[in-house]
Amino acid sequence: MKKFNSVLIIGMGLIGSSISRALIENHITNNIYGLDCDENVIQKCKNLNILTKGETELNKFDIQFDLIVICTPLSSYKNIFNSLAEFVLQPTLVTDVGSTKMSTIKDFTNVTNNKYMTFIPSHPIAGLEKTGPEHGFSKLFNDRYCILTPFEKNDDALNRISEMWKSIGMSIEMMEPDRHDRVLAMTSHIPQLIAFSVVGTATELESHMREEVIKYSAAGFRDFTRLAGSDAIMWRDVYDKNKDAVLEMLGRFSEDLSTYQKAIRNGDLEFLQNKFNQSKKIRKEIEDIGQAGSFDPTEKKN
Amino acid sequence: MKKFNSVLIIGMGLIGSSISRALIENHITNNIYGLDCDENVIQKCKNLNILTKGETELNKFDIQFDLIVICTPLSSYKNIFNSLAEFVLQPTLVTDVGSTKMSTIKDFTNVTNNKYMTFIPSHPIAGLEKTGPEHGFSKLFNDRYCILTPFEKNDDALNRISEMWKSIGMSIEMMEPDRHDRVLAMTSHIPQLIAFSVVGTATELESHMREEVIKYSAAGFRDFTRLAGSDAIMWRDVYDKNKDAVLEMLGRFSEDLSTYQKAIRNGDLEFLQNKFNQSKKIRKEIEDIGQAGSFDPTEKKN
Repeated sequence: MKKFNSVLIIGMGLIGSSISRALIENHITNNIYGLDCDENVIQKCKNLNILTKGETELNKFDIQFDLIVICTPLSSYKNIFNSLAEFVLQPTLVTDVGSTKMSTIKDFTNVTNNKYMTFIPSHPIAGLEKTGPEHGFSKLFNDRYCILTPFEKNDDALNRISEMWKSIGMSIEMMEPDRHDRVLAMTSHIPQLIAFSVVGTATELESHMREEVIKYSAAGFRDFTRLAGSDAIMWRDVYDKNKDAVLEMLGRFSEDLSTYQKAIRNGDLEFLQNKFNQSKKIRKEIEDIGQAGSFDPTEKKN
Repeated sequence: MKKFNSVLIIGMGLIGSSISRALIENHITNNIYGLDCDENVIQKCKNLNILTKGETELNKFDIQFDLIVICTPLSSYKNIFNSLAEFVLQPTLVTDVGSTKMSTIKDFTNVTNNKYMTFIPSHPIAGLEKTGPEHGFSKLFNDRYCILTPFEKNDDALNRISEMWKSIGMSIEMMEPDRHDRVLAMTSHIPQLIAFSVVGTATELESHMREEVIKYSAAGFRDFTRLAGSDAIMWRDVYDKNKDAVLEMLGRFSEDLSTYQKAIRNGDLEFLQNKFNQSKKIRKEIEDIGQAGSFDPTEKKN
């Protein structure tokens, strides 16, 4: 594929730093620049030697970019699009990695009238509960899907962004932005919220019991805490930006959970067994399509 | 430690077969016998060569055992204790691996008046979402806790059972049976139920969306499906036997989830951010005490 001359990553956390590493490793560009409002993050990137140059302010860059990837919490998009609209002076492809797409598109179209910027919204479905550039790695996107939700016709731009994600190991899927937000509410935003909530319930137990819950977390609870280890601000923004779909799916979940509760109260073991068997089948399907990841129940020794 | 002459494992699934392997590997006995009502399971054990002898009926064994470990769903305990009460003709230690302990003790004391049997209830906190002897492995218990809930004083028996679990890598903790059931409701039974329920909600979506949820499960949903891959009958029995503690903790969880729902509806981002940060701290504590396991987000290639 055609290389990019110079790429700017905005937000050098886990995802941004992983993209930097992957683009270099796969020879998509030789020049990766990083912008992050946190001086410590930029310092870490320098120590890790993963950037051509890192800055905490956009205006400190005295060059232009042909690709810009936004990897910041959703609440920062409006300001970022505003700053970019002033900064960009040549044709520039812009994409992002945000977990909601309706809000992203709205933020872009409300803000920018800079004709040099072409925005193709992306959502690479890949991640880890860790935060910070020190946890990023180039293979994070391997064998994962990237959903694109283009909102205006521009085949050239769409192709270049698709090729970029493919070159770092992703499979491309197109989706309408509103459908994306509903699907992701169910596959991502609701599981995450429930994980936070279960872990929250445990923290509010009497202190003696709280300690025991942590101690015996290998019994299942720890799977929820893995998700709950994710970045608080990033997730706060997701629930703000995808409110309607999240509340709808949360309503469905609560209704379903009530039927389980009732079955337990009434001793309806057949209902429970049938439901559990159905869930087991779904797990099997996910393993069969190679999207299950792998869990090692043993501890890695340091 | 003093060896056992001959050990009987009742229920040769994931846990039973892992115990068999671990006891042999650590030289706790040279003679492991397996009982399972499923002929296929016994056949698999023969093919795996992990048993001295396997049978589908207790009465087919013409020897006695000095240790019997029950590794079956909780609904089978009454029948098993009844059969053992007729079978056992010499001093025999009996233990189990069941996820509830009040019901286990009740089943034992209601049934048996065979003075040769000494029962020390155990709950090794270790497992995997897979089922069947082919998935068992000897290291499953390494670095994990085993909770014992003795209900009558017998130091010798308690010591021997403790030593047996320690010899396969476990740390022993003593707990009152009712406390065990409340702690495990929170660390195990509730996360499991919620996982089943979230996966259940996804299965009931319109079929087109259901496919997409499976496809993009790497976004968080798959963590729930891992738990939901567990054995349906085993879990059905847990909710039957630990009804009160499960309903109590489920009530707490539902209340907490409602506060999140309300915060999302009202756009109370500060509440969400604070709660998420608290959950993140719990995750950190679990990692610090070495009970987090490790998740590999990449796919193992066959």
